[in-house]
Amino acid sequence: MMKEVWKDKYEILKEELAQRGVNLEEVKESIKDLNIETPSWGYSNAGTRFATFEEAYAARNVEDRLEDAAKVQELTGGSPSVAIHIPWDKTSDYGKLREKAERLGVEIGAVNPNLFEDYDYKFGSLAHPDSSVRQKAVDHVFECIDVMREVNSDVLSLWLADGTNYPGQDDFRDRKNRLENSFSRIYDELPDGAKMLIEYKPFEPAFYHTDIADWGMSLNYCNKLGEQAKVLVDTGHHLKGTNIEHIVSFLIDEVALGGFHFNNKKYADDDLTTGSINPYEIFLIFQEIVKAESDPDVEDLDISYMVDQMHIIKNKLEAMIQTVNTVQKLYAKALIVNQTALEEEQKNLNPVKAEEVLKEAYETDVDPLIKKIMVEEGRSPEPLKAFRESGYMEKITQERS
Amino acid sequence: MMKEVWKDKYEILKEELAQRGVNLEEVKESIKDLNIETPSWGYSNAGTRFATFEEAYAARNVEDRLEDAAKVQELTGGSPSVAIHIPWDKTSDYGKLREKAERLGVEIGAVNPNLFEDYDYKFGSLAHPDSSVRQKAVDHVFECIDVMREVNSDVLSLWLADGTNYPGQDDFRDRKNRLENSFSRIYDELPDGAKMLIEYKPFEPAFYHTDIADWGMSLNYCNKLGEQAKVLVDTGHHLKGTNIEHIVSFLIDEVALGGFHFNNKKYADDDLTTGSINPYEIFLIFQEIVKAESDPDVEDLDISYMVDQMHIIKNKLEAMIQTVNTVQKLYAKALIVNQTALEEEQKNLNPVKAEEVLKEAYETDVDPLIKKIMVEEGRSPEPLKAFRESGYMEKITQERS
Amino acid sequence: MMKEVWKDKYEILKEELAQRGVNLEEVKESIKDLNIETPSWGYSNAGTRFATFEEAYAARNVEDRLEDAAKVQELTGGSPSVAIHIPWDKTSDYGKLREKAERLGVEIGAVNPNLFEDYDYKFGSLAHPDSSVRQKAVDHVFECIDVMREVNSDVLSLWLADGTNYPGQDDFRDRKNRLENSFSRIYDELPDGAKMLIEYKPFEPAFYHTDIADWGMSLNYCNKLGEQAKVLVDTGHHLKGTNIEHIVSFLIDEVALGGFHFNNKKYADDDLTTGSINPYEIFLIFQEIVKAESDPDVEDLDISYMVDQMHIIKNKLEAMIQTVNTVQKLYAKALIVNQTALEEEQKNLNPVKAEEVLKEAYETDVDPLIKKIMVEEGRSPEPLKAFRESGYMEKITQERS
Amino acid sequence: MMKEVWKDKYEILKEELAQRGVNLEEVKESIKDLNIETPSWGYSNAGTRFATFEEAYAARNVEDRLEDAAKVQELTGGSPSVAIHIPWDKTSDYGKLREKAERLGVEIGAVNPNLFEDYDYKFGSLAHPDSSVRQKAVDHVFECIDVMREVNSDVLSLWLADGTNYPGQDDFRDRKNRLENSFSRIYDELPDGAKMLIEYKPFEPAFYHTDIADWGMSLNYCNKLGEQAKVLVDTGHHLKGTNIEHIVSFLIDEVALGGFHFNNKKYADDDLTTGSINPYEIFLIFQEIVKAESDPDVEDLDISYMVDQMHIIKNKLEAMIQTVNTVQKLYAKALIVNQTALEEEQKNLNPVKAEEVLKEAYETDVDPLIKKIMVEEGRSPEPLKAFRESGYMEKITQERS
Repeated sequence: MMKEVWKDKYEILKEELAQRGVNLEEVKESIKDLNIETPSWGYSNAGTRFATFEEAYAARNVEDRLEDAAKVQELTGGSPSVAIHIPWDKTSDYGKLREKAERLGVEIGAVNPNLFEDYDYKFGSLAHPDSSVRQKAVDHVFECIDVMREVNSDVLSLWLADGTNYPGQDDFRDRKNRLENSFSRIYDELPDGAKMLIEYKPFEPAFYHTDIADWGMSLNYCNKLGEQAKVLVDTGHHLKGTNIEHIVSFLIDEVALGGFHFNNKKYADDDLTTGSINPYEIFLIFQEIVKAESDPDVEDLDISYMVDQMHIIKNKLEAMIQTVNTVQKLYAKALIVNQTALEEEQKNLNPVKAEEVLKEAYETDVDPLIKKIMVEEGRSPEPLKAFRESGYMEKITQERS
Repeated sequence: MMKEVWKDKYEILKEELAQRGVNLEEVKESIKDLNIETPSWGYSNAGTRFATFEEAYAARNVEDRLEDAAKVQELTGGSPSVAIHIPWDKTSDYGKLREKAERLGVEIGAVNPNLFEDYDYKFGSLAHPDSSVRQKAVDHVFECIDVMREVNSDVLSLWLADGTNYPGQDDFRDRKNRLENSFSRIYDELPDGAKMLIEYKPFEPAFYHTDIADWGMSLNYCNKLGEQAKVLVDTGHHLKGTNIEHIVSFLIDEVALGGFHFNNKKYADDDLTTGSINPYEIFLIFQEIVKAESDPDVEDLDISYMVDQMHIIKNKLEAMIQTVNTVQKLYAKALIVNQTALEEEQKNLNPVKAEEVLKEAYETDVDPLIKKIMVEEGRSPEPLKAFRESGYMEKITQERS
Repeated sequence: MMKEVWKDKYEILKEELAQRGVNLEEVKESIKDLNIETPSWGYSNAGTRFATFEEAYAARNVEDRLEDAAKVQELTGGSPSVAIHIPWDKTSDYGKLREKAERLGVEIGAVNPNLFEDYDYKFGSLAHPDSSVRQKAVDHVFECIDVMREVNSDVLSLWLADGTNYPGQDDFRDRKNRLENSFSRIYDELPDGAKMLIEYKPFEPAFYHTDIADWGMSLNYCNKLGEQAKVLVDTGHHLKGTNIEHIVSFLIDEVALGGFHFNNKKYADDDLTTGSINPYEIFLIFQEIVKAESDPDVEDLDISYMVDQMHIIKNKLEAMIQTVNTVQKLYAKALIVNQTALEEEQKNLNPVKAEEVLKEAYETDVDPLIKKIMVEEGRSPEPLKAFRESGYMEKITQERS
Repeated sequence: MMKEVWKDKYEILKEELAQRGVNLEEVKESIKDLNIETPSWGYSNAGTRFATFEEAYAARNVEDRLEDAAKVQELTGGSPSVAIHIPWDKTSDYGKLREKAERLGVEIGAVNPNLFEDYDYKFGSLAHPDSSVRQKAVDHVFECIDVMREVNSDVLSLWLADGTNYPGQDDFRDRKNRLENSFSRIYDELPDGAKMLIEYKPFEPAFYHTDIADWGMSLNYCNKLGEQAKVLVDTGHHLKGTNIEHIVSFLIDEVALGGFHFNNKKYADDDLTTGSINPYEIFLIFQEIVKAESDPDVEDLDISYMVDQMHIIKNKLEAMIQTVNTVQKLYAKALIVNQTALEEEQKNLNPVKAEEVLKEAYETDVDPLIKKIMVEEGRSPEPLKAFRESGYMEKITQERS
């Protein structure tokens, strides 16, 4: 019976959007084309520094993780690729891994080196004072570049924990120069056409200074490297108050936005579900992207949308389905903004009317639109419900216990 | 033509909410009963410490302010009272002021003393080291209590700028004890049945410490005074990251929540339009209130909803209409939460499903519901549009220039 | 040769302080009386959620931890007691543990239950929706109260990870009432004369709301329990910008300050060495305490000074010696503030002169004073150097590898 | 008698620093060479958005301001130049103004345009949507460049209030491109050898986005303009938690650090006295500069040290003397860091020892050193006391009332 309601709502939405001059079929195509890459590590056990709660169903290895990611993709259609992390997803035959992924209906996306777990990285990796540790770190990234070739990935995603915990611990400029040097060696090995993403973060696990603390530092490193180096924006990696959509727009203008790590936070890098704390903010980020997508002056827009979340108390698979669904909705809301009216009110210096244009789109219930897309693609209109009824949880809980 | 769409949407919403077990008529009554008091000072010129932009149409005196507030009430039906500020709204005959308000169709609400503008208050008011300044401040509040009697107000709303700018400037405990003493003298003069609201703020204009820095300090003062003293929550008066809805709920449980100053902020006390930065947060605050309203264990829920915004670049009247409309919508969204389902999922320890219950309500487009209420009350379904077409701006611009 | 310099500096300091009217012998007594309790967990391996670096010398069990703590006490004279954490320090015979501690020259201080690590605590402990989990948590605290009796401790130190990660996950008021109930059951079992400390924290590991989020909530729980319940202030557990010394002073005035967890932070709960980021702030906290200590109106000042730090990249023992030494110095600086002059300038409404009084003390080099105390107590004037030369590191590294 | 003590302390300090290998005469020369420029606007009435307290002695015009600045310079020797702000310091004959300054013993330093006060700038200045407003703003900066020539200033200091208050109000990329264009026009008119400083600020007076929100945006604009454009770091213009010394060091490495606006904050842009909240942070900033000053790899270090403070409750002149004195002390502490030992411990990966090297310098009482310099320069060793005894306050209070 509920089904009937969303279908009626869809028809009215269609009529309403037509009145606003929105081409609904184009909107649907854009949403269908959106790839929200999920991370292999999001399917495993996760915790805080205080506790990790072991779940019987949690993925044990890269094979389990691919299966979980494929299930999310099967149900949502929005997450056709999976980011991997080396050595967590290390395997003896990456060709076979790629084949397995393909069989499951997903691709392997960004490759993420681990430059923080090894004891040798206690004082840094690519910026470490000791050249032998830097060499080890660079070699590990080279290994990841080899993996990229084998799994057919064109994204190298670099997040560094490098930094210091105390004033005086190391010299900022020395670290900067060492890091530039390490990055340059890595960049030289990058396959043609591949992107090297440089992520920034203000703090944690380094608690006094972090070598790549903000987007300005990421961009500075990218500018010195070349066009294949781009900035990665993790939505949780900003000091409180930062206007992220402004940074996104600035990076687009500098042809330097490489991609996103989606998640949400209320305090620090909380890794909560995207849109769970401030959904309007994600909408505003997408609004910058949608404007850029239709702007002839914007060149080379090539944005990787990735999720970086590790759910501790939520069911990991449900939370990932919820995330893809939420991102689809918030992107849809940005796609139906009446950009012509918005520009007009901006020119008129009318902030109330301009804001009303944004809010009209944000407050539109796009749920029927997403349901319609799901059905058109042959999926259940309610992926979360479908997941719960699929028996998948029971299956993996039994298999993995 | 658009009209037809919202009416159709309303019919579907009705059906949908019926399926969710929501009693729509009760929801409509609750929204109609909501009084979002607007502040007289929100209709006058305002600025930052850097500039105040003088607007030709800005209210010049308390009469202008009442007229503007009445216009907002006429169009929205949601703001039947107006807060006043003494001496900004000082007048020779408060009886006449009350009559004028009544003629215009509004009431006078909270009375706000000014304890920060006078040179004597450079080092504080009710907590000032010098007893003669404290006496002056107490006397001013007594004057405001007299005004309350004359204008028929039962809310005394106290915000203090008291604090220090530098370590060592004054003694915290001495200030606390002086403030307790001043509060006690004021409380003794409070008319029966009146509320004394004590507002908190972490900083500004004091930049090292503020005497009433957070809700805990407000509550502590209230507890010592008695049942007529309650905490006032200004949504913009919290350090970044504070979970305001948690505080609201805590205060409800302590029978100590007296009211709100609504506004929104991205950084400090920005006084932006309610819901303009994080609308979900306001929804979550209302969700706490809605739960309490239907909870038989909650006694004496008596919450004053007031706006505290001074619009600098937006049209002041449009912004106030927008605010009332936004608050109505966010309250409506809280009213249609399926509380039974929510409780059920909380008991089941299922955070995904519990969140989905909240989001189902939040993502519902309640615009047709608010439009329906407007029409039922004999108003235009689009108050902002009606305002723009009313000729009121042209009228006051001419009169006040 | 350096030795001669500090002795000369001490003589001049003596003369200078005499001129300021400071009684140096009293200052020395106060510093000698200061007990900065170190935590057993500060001697073991520690990390962030990203990595724990295993150190060969790290304490493996409670015996190792007591030995390390005793070494710090031997060298500094400022840390005669050790906080323990159950079950990390669980042992079969607590009487024997107490004897071992005594033999080593230390006492066992606060007992800390662990209410966050067990899988059952995934959704809370004392505030958990399920009464059986609450019972388990209460039972564990009862076990800790038994330990208190056996080890002769009079401090039960409660920190809860209870909270939620997502809006809607649980009901705030239900959680509050459950927690009040659990606390009440614990309080009833508290030995006479013992303190029950209730710690607060704004976030982590809970990322949406924390049940005891700030000092106001701690105090509210304490007030309902009785005089043995006091607030524990962890210097790292505040939102950015919080004026901690103001809270300390407020709690002193409410006869509710139970103690401290010292550490320092630049961002979140970073657990850095006390005074490593903003030493002036710790000085200002001590200034509040010193004033209260000499104020006849302040009753029942009974403050436990505890360290809560887990050093990840610093040598754990050196960092603890450094901490005790730093706290001694900052307390010394507060002790030599010319309080009479300060009060005078506060009365004169002269913030520049008042600040100069504080800064005169803060900028005084008290290193020779601490060295003098060390020598008077028969210790090396340079505990860190003495530690490095003691061979202790070599000994434990060999023993514990 | 106190005099004798500081002289004795100086002798011991000399001995101690000699032992640490510090060349005291070089340190003294560096401090004597330090120019801490004071702002003309710091001598006038100032306030918050809530109140401005009018002081009888406050400077009424540019002449008064120069006299006050000259008094501060006379007493401290550390502030030989004065920043001016147009139109606040507008005058009919700038040649005469320069002569007056010279007669008083000061120079005119940075010239600051006002691009925020005029009604036309309600929606921006150099980034305003309307080209006629941008032209007005550019013309005003041209006027300031003319003033620079007349007063012999080689610093154009640009702070923009440009930004938006609400999502949707304007287009970020359009604003960025307009701003680049305006900057470029200004840069073309810059006199040879002059610096154009671009200041950043995260918020206020714009409360949703600020066009130059952080150092990364400033640097990006500078890089496009050329070598004469440099970044201006206002210590109060950062989101809470920002590691300012890291940014300073990064900018030094990019040959892009143009200067400072010194002040201190606990919350937002509080404009408190430098070093009044976290003096250690200013020390750490100077430590980066001192290292760069002696680093042969660092080219073209040309840093303008300016104060940007408006004292509301402190005596404005005393506060300025206090500021210069504080900056001198914190710079002195950085100058006596044992850099060789520090580098050694950094290489040894020993954060405890490295930190001890910094703290040894920071905790050194350099007051006798500053007093010695004052006396060597023929000034009173106690500038604040000398000011109070000079009769200057009485004189200006009478003259200016």
